[in-house]
Amino acid sequence: MPATESAPEEAAAISRRHVRLRESLAEHDLHALAVNAGPSLSYLTGLNFHISERPVVLFMTASARPTLVLPELEIQKAKSAPVELDLFTYGEGLETWGTAFQAAAEHAGIDNNAVGVEPGCMRVLELRFLESAAPGARYISGEACMAALRMLKDDEELSQMQRATEIAEIGLQNTLPFVEEGVTEKEIAGRLIANMLQLGSEGELPFQPIIAFGANSANPHAVPTDYALQRGDLVLFDWGANSNGYFSDLTRMFSLGEPDDELRRIVEIVGQANEAGRSAVAPGTTAGSIDDATRSVIKEAGYAERFVHRTGHGLGLEVHEPPYIRADNTRALEVGMTFTIEPGIYLPGRGGARIEDDMVVTPSGGRSLSSISRQLGIL
Amino acid sequence: MPATESAPEEAAAISRRHVRLRESLAEHDLHALAVNAGPSLSYLTGLNFHISERPVVLFMTASARPTLVLPELEIQKAKSAPVELDLFTYGEGLETWGTAFQAAAEHAGIDNNAVGVEPGCMRVLELRFLESAAPGARYISGEACMAALRMLKDDEELSQMQRATEIAEIGLQNTLPFVEEGVTEKEIAGRLIANMLQLGSEGELPFQPIIAFGANSANPHAVPTDYALQRGDLVLFDWGANSNGYFSDLTRMFSLGEPDDELRRIVEIVGQANEAGRSAVAPGTTAGSIDDATRSVIKEAGYAERFVHRTGHGLGLEVHEPPYIRADNTRALEVGMTFTIEPGIYLPGRGGARIEDDMVVTPSGGRSLSSISRQLGIL
Repeated sequence: MPATESAPEEAAAISRRHVRLRESLAEHDLHALAVNAGPSLSYLTGLNFHISERPVVLFMTASARPTLVLPELEIQKAKSAPVELDLFTYGEGLETWGTAFQAAAEHAGIDNNAVGVEPGCMRVLELRFLESAAPGARYISGEACMAALRMLKDDEELSQMQRATEIAEIGLQNTLPFVEEGVTEKEIAGRLIANMLQLGSEGELPFQPIIAFGANSANPHAVPTDYALQRGDLVLFDWGANSNGYFSDLTRMFSLGEPDDELRRIVEIVGQANEAGRSAVAPGTTAGSIDDATRSVIKEAGYAERFVHRTGHGLGLEVHEPPYIRADNTRALEVGMTFTIEPGIYLPGRGGARIEDDMVVTPSGGRSLSSISRQLGIL
Repeated sequence: MPATESAPEEAAAISRRHVRLRESLAEHDLHALAVNAGPSLSYLTGLNFHISERPVVLFMTASARPTLVLPELEIQKAKSAPVELDLFTYGEGLETWGTAFQAAAEHAGIDNNAVGVEPGCMRVLELRFLESAAPGARYISGEACMAALRMLKDDEELSQMQRATEIAEIGLQNTLPFVEEGVTEKEIAGRLIANMLQLGSEGELPFQPIIAFGANSANPHAVPTDYALQRGDLVLFDWGANSNGYFSDLTRMFSLGEPDDELRRIVEIVGQANEAGRSAVAPGTTAGSIDDATRSVIKEAGYAERFVHRTGHGLGLEVHEPPYIRADNTRALEVGMTFTIEPGIYLPGRGGARIEDDMVVTPSGGRSLSSISRQLGIL
């Protein structure tokens, strides 16, 4: 939770989430949501637990007080929560773990009911403890139930995302002077990370920055290497910062000297596709139609088969979360949703281009949290 | 995989792991191991995939070639693997995901067999795809099967861990000059991270450094706060670096000026407990007896109930992995195992002490990878 909020404000924000979650449970025909250590648990408790070999699980139901299973050595942290939690702890001995889960499941009345879990966050470790604690329950996806809350950001969440964007933008500007012939992708990545931390980003970055030079930029998920920058190379930055748990995620394109004509052209096309996507954002528009907007620009330019991924993804406490901006997503956008728009064109062996912004849906359309130039920057 | 190894050496190291894994599968009565994105997948393929909403799963069996399910946009990376993999890709449309899993499971002959998964790494997301692809199979813990390989580090792995330790040690030394009255835990954490990156640590640190001043050091899993350092406070550093995926994890104690007598005393006792643990390491000794060695020192000093966690944990590609150094662990130590020894004493509201080293089991006993002083450093 944001450090800038006072304790009572934080408690009130979390209590509002609990009220909304109880409504969402009913809408999704779930008796309970079982949430393991991760962003949703932080969102619902104000506490941060690392995912580790010691399971931490929160049970949220319509009637019981939020119920938390956790290792005894974390009890101090749990007692500092801004909201009241019923705690069930286990010790270092493995035989105590199942007992704690069983007691918590009984307390939350799990019984033979439908229990939502987050498939992309919960591990087999926690699932097996839940299955043993309440073998009659059905453990199904609670992703939609939880996403219904987390997709709609409140003002405090948006201001954290704005700050994360500003840290990323200034972090980039402080790094660009070091991009010169012979520097490696890894060196630039290290400098960018250090710059963002110095500017106030939390240490847990949303992801390791992708710094990709030359042909490496043709790999959408490139990892920084020891490749040394050469004249004519494209330079792709895909990076973000963390402000109190909320993320930014941007991509910008540069080159060292003039790139060849086709590389320059794909950067321009991707910029037009990005703009088309941003302009298409409005409440009520579907996520799929944003994908259409970017993709049709790239298709018309003749690069349809070189745009090998979806247009974007939701962003917030996670770097990839709903809503996904994908052709087949018929979800209507709502005010307060936040997501990326990041069309790309990739020419294997030569180079790739992607330009990415973080958007918020407002009553009057889409607003980009980022404001730095989207033009190809010649270094 | 280490960048310092040549491609043929890397391929040979991975092939040796495949041979050992096939033996381990037979020993553990498993037809296959299904490994999702994470350290074991890197260990077995030389490829790094981030865990994301797009599942990546490797099937290892006694007879079939290693079989990988992955998103199409990662295919370039998969083709660059140092060993041959049979690839099954899916597209952006969700309907293609299950098909890819089914084809891969058939290719690997999963059928109605026993399939090991890593409960602490695999998510419900991947498990459900596996269950749909091969509903007759039994998905059980393959942790022991995989740990049998990963626990025993080869020379190249040990040299990476040594380098990760050295980066951490120098990173600390470069940070200590900034520890002064009024500095915050967060500021010191940011500086330490930047220093380690500059020294060549990979950006993905093993964990966010714990920098805990004063009473915060009484929380074993403290997170850096805006608390400003005061004279007389204990200063706890628990930090580590990453060298080509291999981790270090150290803890050292300092104070700003003289701490009070009891705080000074707990640091001394913890130092003696750490030494007793290190001296007890030898091939054939049980993990539990290392825990006994540290715990009995603390017990004799009258602080038994203030040592609220196990003595240590395995270390390597993960910050917590087998072998766990816990009272109830009867596993015999073997040459090549690597783990931490980190006894602690915590006085709630006042301060805590922990001293942690990274040990390797050698034929002649335990060797610490770290060499910096374990004495209380008065700043």
